[in-house]
Amino acid sequence: MQPKRKAVVLLSGGLDSATCLALAKQQGYECYALSFDYGQRHIGELAAAANIATLMQVAMHRIIKMDLGGIGGSALTDASLTIPEQESVGIPITYVPARNSIFLAFALAWAEVLQAQAIFIGVNALDYSGYPDCRPAFIEAFQHMANLATKAGVEGNALKIEAPLLAMDKAGIIKAGIAAGVDYAMTVSCYQLNDKNEACGRCDSCRFRRKGFLEAAVTDPTRYVTY
Amino acid sequence: MQPKRKAVVLLSGGLDSATCLALAKQQGYECYALSFDYGQRHIGELAAAANIATLMQVAMHRIIKMDLGGIGGSALTDASLTIPEQESVGIPITYVPARNSIFLAFALAWAEVLQAQAIFIGVNALDYSGYPDCRPAFIEAFQHMANLATKAGVEGNALKIEAPLLAMDKAGIIKAGIAAGVDYAMTVSCYQLNDKNEACGRCDSCRFRRKGFLEAAVTDPTRYVTY
Repeated sequence: MQPKRKAVVLLSGGLDSATCLALAKQQGYECYALSFDYGQRHIGELAAAANIATLMQVAMHRIIKMDLGGIGGSALTDASLTIPEQESVGIPITYVPARNSIFLAFALAWAEVLQAQAIFIGVNALDYSGYPDCRPAFIEAFQHMANLATKAGVEGNALKIEAPLLAMDKAGIIKAGIAAGVDYAMTVSCYQLNDKNEACGRCDSCRFRRKGFLEAAVTDPTRYVTY
Repeated sequence: MQPKRKAVVLLSGGLDSATCLALAKQQGYECYALSFDYGQRHIGELAAAANIATLMQVAMHRIIKMDLGGIGGSALTDASLTIPEQESVGIPITYVPARNSIFLAFALAWAEVLQAQAIFIGVNALDYSGYPDCRPAFIEAFQHMANLATKAGVEGNALKIEAPLLAMDKAGIIKAGIAAGVDYAMTVSCYQLNDKNEACGRCDSCRFRRKGFLEAAVTDPTRYVTY
């Protein structure tokens, strides 16, 4: 019997990455979920990631702790900056410098050890917040770099960076996820979840999520704070 | 007055990265040194890095702690594997999966926050251990990816990945470093430094270092263990 193909799947605990994991499973991969504890404000995400990983029966879930927050520069990791609640112009303050480069580099290290064939990342270029490292050109450039960086690449076993949500809008992602069995009540999107795990409903991430459920004509299972 | 150009310099505490820092200073950069505590066996390196950073008067020295060791796969981070003392064929067991990709990704994040113009990395493609992520093609691919990943890149302020040692042999590196004021007695190369900070003289890294001093006709200041 052919051994099952392996994939490292970046799992934040949000709507996009949970969908991405479900799609990787649907494609027949044995999935290794990778999350990061990098000083993000919304640590409720990590608990969500652990629950999703268990529910979706991944082969292993690893959480890497690192002090990215020390570098500063983003409202997501710097408590002295305020999360904006209006639509922002250009690259917003919630952008974490080089975050996807760092996450993918760790995924690459693990993929190499596991001899995995793919890394899945839930970025999308529509209905997103204008982060530069969510664009198709970035994903392509990372894949090219990855195959020059590693022993596997040198030996001719090319690794693929899979970004199945890249060209989907939020409604499309939600429909694909529901078809693949995602329970969105388990996922967390809000940048400023309160201590009762209620979403603010106002930040960029909440706005995209709400609009997505509305457009997909699916009931939004998110618990929003009542003002 | 034009503000000084900034550079993030990867500093391991070894011979190559110390030379690289000296060359970045020589080129007029204000230098921000970046080291990693990633579960490497030779933690004596980090103390060396801190001393070198002070001596060379960097603007800031940051040590990022992360659990790369948990991913496994290398004799440098996995205590159950033995450091080889004979010349190895192909990619050796001391290779840490995707290490330079991870280090450069963190440097990229810091460079973006600092609005730095360059990242310096002390890789060289001659007299090295056959690691895939020390090759010119890897450095070029990383630079291309970096400029697609970041806000600065998007806004047209391209970042340069400088690898000034890339085409030098060990003897050439040592000569360039001495001309730029490096005190090599401060640097640590050995993969298995003992608790008296004595180098083994037998591992790949010691062998390249010894040969370098010999060929440069410079006295080797390394304290080797006496067997």
